[in-house]
Amino acid sequence: MSDISDLIKRFQYHRLLKSDPQTKSIALLGSIHGKDAIITLEKTHFLIPESGDIDLQTVVQEVEVIQNNDIYYWSKAKLNQSLSQFPGGKLNLIYPATEIHIKKYGVQKYHYIKESPEVYNQYVVPYINTMKGDRIKWVYNILFEGKESESFIHHDKDPLNGFVLLPDMKWDGMNLDALYLCCIVNRKDILSVRDLNGSHLEFLTRLQSQLRTITCEHYPGIDKDELRIFIHYQPSYYHFHIHVVTTKHSGLGDGINIGKAILLDDIIENIKLMSDYYHKRTLGYVIGENHDLWKLEGFKNQTKP
Amino acid sequence: MSDISDLIKRFQYHRLLKSDPQTKSIALLGSIHGKDAIITLEKTHFLIPESGDIDLQTVVQEVEVIQNNDIYYWSKAKLNQSLSQFPGGKLNLIYPATEIHIKKYGVQKYHYIKESPEVYNQYVVPYINTMKGDRIKWVYNILFEGKESESFIHHDKDPLNGFVLLPDMKWDGMNLDALYLCCIVNRKDILSVRDLNGSHLEFLTRLQSQLRTITCEHYPGIDKDELRIFIHYQPSYYHFHIHVVTTKHSGLGDGINIGKAILLDDIIENIKLMSDYYHKRTLGYVIGENHDLWKLEGFKNQTKP
Repeated sequence: MSDISDLIKRFQYHRLLKSDPQTKSIALLGSIHGKDAIITLEKTHFLIPESGDIDLQTVVQEVEVIQNNDIYYWSKAKLNQSLSQFPGGKLNLIYPATEIHIKKYGVQKYHYIKESPEVYNQYVVPYINTMKGDRIKWVYNILFEGKESESFIHHDKDPLNGFVLLPDMKWDGMNLDALYLCCIVNRKDILSVRDLNGSHLEFLTRLQSQLRTITCEHYPGIDKDELRIFIHYQPSYYHFHIHVVTTKHSGLGDGINIGKAILLDDIIENIKLMSDYYHKRTLGYVIGENHDLWKLEGFKNQTKP
Repeated sequence: MSDISDLIKRFQYHRLLKSDPQTKSIALLGSIHGKDAIITLEKTHFLIPESGDIDLQTVVQEVEVIQNNDIYYWSKAKLNQSLSQFPGGKLNLIYPATEIHIKKYGVQKYHYIKESPEVYNQYVVPYINTMKGDRIKWVYNILFEGKESESFIHHDKDPLNGFVLLPDMKWDGMNLDALYLCCIVNRKDILSVRDLNGSHLEFLTRLQSQLRTITCEHYPGIDKDELRIFIHYQPSYYHFHIHVVTTKHSGLGDGINIGKAILLDDIIENIKLMSDYYHKRTLGYVIGENHDLWKLEGFKNQTKP
């Protein structure tokens, strides 16, 4: 086992793989002795003593005001650190790293775009058509072949109104605060939100009501008004499915953000106000450069905000 | 203006209001000179130089191994800090703090509710009326009294179309990935999204276009399609203002989530399709138990999902 201090001193920086301001973490690609190495650095959380009592003076060494307005002050702070008790960060090293590690830690650029109905018809529909068949075989396995059925929370086999409700793979299955379920409908005729209209009003309203009831019966610690129920556009697969998380979830990467997630209630209210709402609307959303739609020049040029 | 260093030295700790391990932030309630004070402390993100080149040796001072398994090493790190260039944290102080501040920063349960136009008129309008005057004095200080003007990115004094664009207090002002700006409009007649209709279409469209242009001119590292522009409902103050963040921001507490944030483009497209959209829509959103609206039995009972 090499000494990590020694390895880090020999780290030759190549490029930044990722930078996440929310979690205060970065991933760096470099090399050590000519072999690829990945370093991830993440700031530590403040240490909360078991007593719960925090002594501000031992946490903060010095401050410098940035601004002050009325009763509000904001400042930069120099924090106390000690390697044993209050390390400022956590450093992980993968060495030697493989191509797969590098891709996993790498990041793509995200663009905010506006998709008009014309762009949808010209570029997105043909793209969706390439995403059928084998690409969603795993979905049909769940719905019709009993795959993952041991984890089902609910299974209604009615071909029109039925659905499967099961834990999402993003959930650890234990921490209720982080509850994340996925509902996949049996019907195959709704590929995305763009296909929804006034004729689906009853279907969606009943479905949402069932999702609230079933989830809260299955997890008695959760109340019906503690769920956020939503879909994604663009979704990661084109067979209508719905995400169910608790209101305690403050974030999940981009998963609950505007410009990616759409409340099921928004959809219901919108098609109630105007049956062909999702047929007419220009939709704004964020798309990563690795998405296949972003590789189409026409799509890219005709969706600028 | 009191010196923030002096105020912080006199801070008497009472209790922990909040602790978020994901964002590495805590909120403390205490008192200064016998009056309530709230201190929020958040670790800063790593500073990414404009060149993009990170010198690991200047970031990390020292490491101590925690564990090593095969190619994986993890360790604690002591990080370099300097108050001017690499502050370890951001410290905000609210002093004197009111009950409303204490509630806002405290831990609370969150409920998903549906606000019909009737509920809006019966409960929300009277609530908004209590939030005028002194409660938004600090906003008028910025708009009309030159407060914080040294940090303005843009100031257009036109009473109808003008606005101030300035760094939000949630931003450390340095790290472009975490860019967070706030635009406050000069006009006083828009209290929330509920007041917007087709007559505001031109105003909002021009405003959004200006925000993209000004932001990207001021921060050349950011492109026009790398911004998420949105509002909040309920907002924390009832004078129309707009949030501008980069698409790299994956989350900010609840700030970018559906059920709290609404894309400015959604508003524009909705009032384009239907002038009185926000007059007619039942709006679903998440509200904390400490919010004063949640204390109204009628509001609570008539907004169940």
